[in-house]
Amino acid sequence: MTLTHPHRQKQLQKLLQKLGLSENSPVQWQLLDLALTHPTISPAANYEQLEFVGDAVVRLAAAELLLETYPDCQVGEFAAIRSVLVSDRALAKIADSYGWDRYLLVANSAAADTAGLESRLADSLEAVLAALYLSTHTLELVRPWLDSHFKQLATEIRTDPARQNYKAALQEWTQAHYKALPVYRVKETTQVHDDAQRFTAEVLLEGRRLGQGKGRSIKAAQQAAAQEAFLSLHQASHPDFEP
Amino acid sequence: MTLTHPHRQKQLQKLLQKLGLSENSPVQWQLLDLALTHPTISPAANYEQLEFVGDAVVRLAAAELLLETYPDCQVGEFAAIRSVLVSDRALAKIADSYGWDRYLLVANSAAADTAGLESRLADSLEAVLAALYLSTHTLELVRPWLDSHFKQLATEIRTDPARQNYKAALQEWTQAHYKALPVYRVKETTQVHDDAQRFTAEVLLEGRRLGQGKGRSIKAAQQAAAQEAFLSLHQASHPDFEP
Repeated sequence: MTLTHPHRQKQLQKLLQKLGLSENSPVQWQLLDLALTHPTISPAANYEQLEFVGDAVVRLAAAELLLETYPDCQVGEFAAIRSVLVSDRALAKIADSYGWDRYLLVANSAAADTAGLESRLADSLEAVLAALYLSTHTLELVRPWLDSHFKQLATEIRTDPARQNYKAALQEWTQAHYKALPVYRVKETTQVHDDAQRFTAEVLLEGRRLGQGKGRSIKAAQQAAAQEAFLSLHQASHPDFEP
Repeated sequence: MTLTHPHRQKQLQKLLQKLGLSENSPVQWQLLDLALTHPTISPAANYEQLEFVGDAVVRLAAAELLLETYPDCQVGEFAAIRSVLVSDRALAKIADSYGWDRYLLVANSAAADTAGLESRLADSLEAVLAALYLSTHTLELVRPWLDSHFKQLATEIRTDPARQNYKAALQEWTQAHYKALPVYRVKETTQVHDDAQRFTAEVLLEGRRLGQGKGRSIKAAQQAAAQEAFLSLHQASHPDFEP
């Protein structure tokens, strides 16, 4: 691993400052440099390995925060909220709020790929989380700035239940436990526009009904069905569900 | 949270000793007690919340170990190995090696459910990892004993490639990136028993072929196809794959 170039070092220090971290923080600069280097710049020395570690760091940070902030929350709700917090979309937004593109080294060819922008930002943010974690082997350099983003998003999710992505959470769960995907069936119950019960959805796993729900839109009805399914599966710690 | 009963405290100290940790370790005993309490004992105070944190702790511990042990390994291989390390099956085996059933409090009704044994052990091991992590906010009380199990298993996986679960890794990846499951098609190429090319499998995602492979058994051919697909998807950091 080579020493970080002075110009690059300054750039990285600037980012650290933006994150609200002291310039004397015990940061491993080479790791931070790697975390902000896209594979198109170097096929061998880029953020991919760190992203692999960062995927776990971000889940851990989110879990700790949720447990501390909502000690009485159901585990099912935790999981649903966390799946939103650690999504590419949420992470890319956080990275973007720091003007990430000024720090992330990307070849021009890849930079032109705007469709890949969200995952580039999210992947590299995960890698930075790993670099900061590995610098101290604690979350000391991570939580001071990440917590505030997660807290705000968690509050938004809890006040606006439609943002709680129960479909994603249910899918993750059925995948892990049954290696199968939930299937949704939707019926239009009434054609009255904006009727909160216009659509009825049911969600099935390998033919068995797990839940149902109603909503103003197809998506809302599916989310309601997923919520019922997800919370009931989580209430029973060892559901006697045998698909 | 109540103080831990003296008898229970002794039991937990015994487990700590078995894990090779000093009896003066800064362990939060109430958390460790919770981590070893099944929901059938207490619907409110059990291991479920800790398991939620532990899921991230175990992924982080595995990622750090793999990165340190195999610094030149491809990220695709890391992911494949980690998905085996953090599987219920692997974690339950680790728990079992410490005689976990002597420490895990379970109601008789649930204890009789032998089918649920593997997930009980794995879930509670994850919860213990969380309790130990939360006691110091580092992996200091986790890696000294968990590493040796993971190292041994990782070595076994690497020497016996059939144990590298590329199917699971590919599935996790397509799920995360495309919210879809890979589909396998298998043909019997020859009926010669034990021919290493007896079966040919191809794996598709939403109709597009991702990889193919041959093998002595259906499972081996599918794994070979999954490996080709998984490694090629990972080589291109932003594959121009559009299903």
